Amino acid sequence: MNLILIEKQELTTDHTVVLTDHRGEHIKNVLRCSKNDEVRVGLVNGPTGSGRILDISPGQVVLKVDCTGPPPPRPLVDLILALPRPIMLKRILTQAASMGVDRIFLIKANRVEKSFFQSTLLKKRNFKPHLLFGLEQAMDTLVPQVSVHERFRPFVEDLLPEIVKQCPIRLAAHPDISQSLLQAVSPPITKKVILAIGPEGGWVDFEIEKFKEQKLIPFNMGPRILRVETAVVAILAQLDLCKRSPVIAIQHS
Amino acid sequence: MNLILIEKQELTTDHTVVLTDHRGEHIKNVLRCSKNDEVRVGLVNGPTGSGRILDISPGQVVLKVDCTGPPPPRPLVDLILALPRPIMLKRILTQAASMGVDRIFLIKANRVEKSFFQSTLLKKRNFKPHLLFGLEQAMDTLVPQVSVHERFRPFVEDLLPEIVKQCPIRLAAHPDISQSLLQAVSPPITKKVILAIGPEGGWVDFEIEKFKEQKLIPFNMGPRILRVETAVVAILAQLDLCKRSPVIAIQHS
Repeated sequence: MNLILIEKQELTTDHTVVLTDHRGEHIKNVLRCSKNDEVRVGLVNGPTGSGRILDISPGQVVLKVDCTGPPPPRPLVDLILALPRPIMLKRILTQAASMGVDRIFLIKANRVEKSFFQSTLLKKRNFKPHLLFGLEQAMDTLVPQVSVHERFRPFVEDLLPEIVKQCPIRLAAHPDISQSLLQAVSPPITKKVILAIGPEGGWVDFEIEKFKEQKLIPFNMGPRILRVETAVVAILAQLDLCKRSPVIAIQHS
Repeated sequence: MNLILIEKQELTTDHTVVLTDHRGEHIKNVLRCSKNDEVRVGLVNGPTGSGRILDISPGQVVLKVDCTGPPPPRPLVDLILALPRPIMLKRILTQAASMGVDRIFLIKANRVEKSFFQSTLLKKRNFKPHLLFGLEQAMDTLVPQVSVHERFRPFVEDLLPEIVKQCPIRLAAHPDISQSLLQAVSPPITKKVILAIGPEGGWVDFEIEKFKEQKLIPFNMGPRILRVETAVVAILAQLDLCKRSPVIAIQHS
């Protein structure tokens, strides 16, 4: 935890907060702070800053919060993800939040088991703790917006056309294709990206055709088949490299 | 599991193998194969090919193995990794093997807890199952060679000079540095890479100086602080993109 994330409604009018959960434990046991020490603090979906420790005792930590820095920039990537197995989804949400994504669309696909939508995690839509865990790590405050779409066709036909309007760079990871990411995009990436990542086993032809209709460009990650949770981190990392790169001229030799 | 990995000593003289463990279960319950079906097979540290099912019954699966294809190419990356917490190490070994690494040097660093070296996993050096799990996923057969180095200084002073002789591209991930990966290397990467990834909290100054003496170039992964297991996948993915890229001319604008 590199940033203590606080919900705005936890703050009192004099900008103090009483932490009695894992955040207080972290300040005491990992950071080993004392009274008057400062810790890095962020307001959920808001600015970052610092918190000075007014009181530290076995049951609680009281912080005086001063968050006046600008919020971090919104991540450039929206992620369409064929709903993975719930236990894997938790880790993916955390890792995706730590890498930086703006919106996450969890969708049905041919190779997604219907029962995944019946899991407790999906029914309660209790994604936030897993997302915050990744944000605390990455020192970000902007919680990715997660939505769930139980039917593929209404998603791609009705919603996706609206999504892609905001995303000039459109990508679909797909193993049955020869072109690599660098053949599908031209770094540096400076505009919003929509990225679709399929289930274990990949998208079926119908699905990839539907994505192509919306101008998503299929690309592959090489001959090694990655688990979805590995692929999510790997592709986001590659996009980040493309984003951070200086001007690159690719010479297709 | 995209490849059924078999140890050479499991094969009989007529090239059959009897599977009674998770591999047999996978063939029955996930692949749902029948007699005479073929599955993708690889010999550990050897060639890939196919296995025809001679017998499938509740207790076992018998395969006739035909592995005559060339073994996959050796990965280009050697990884120096500050020993992570054992539970995290298991996942990292699996993910690193699935991304492709040649050798893994697990080393002590200032911010590595000594107790990690006393864990059962480290004492038994039983890394292979975790590595095979990643290889089965990635359809590779070459098991990364893992070695353990309980003291930092002998490793960097005595062993590292030998390692770097084989690795023209030398990198050390380090958050306290401004240059990115694309400022530290020039794609496409075609030569062997040595990559050092530090513990949670990063390398200390002394360690990074020691790496610099061996011409490892420090680079950072951007403002987001990643957990080590995320960083390993992210950096290997970025190196893979650099490896797979067409000729790239970087114009530092």
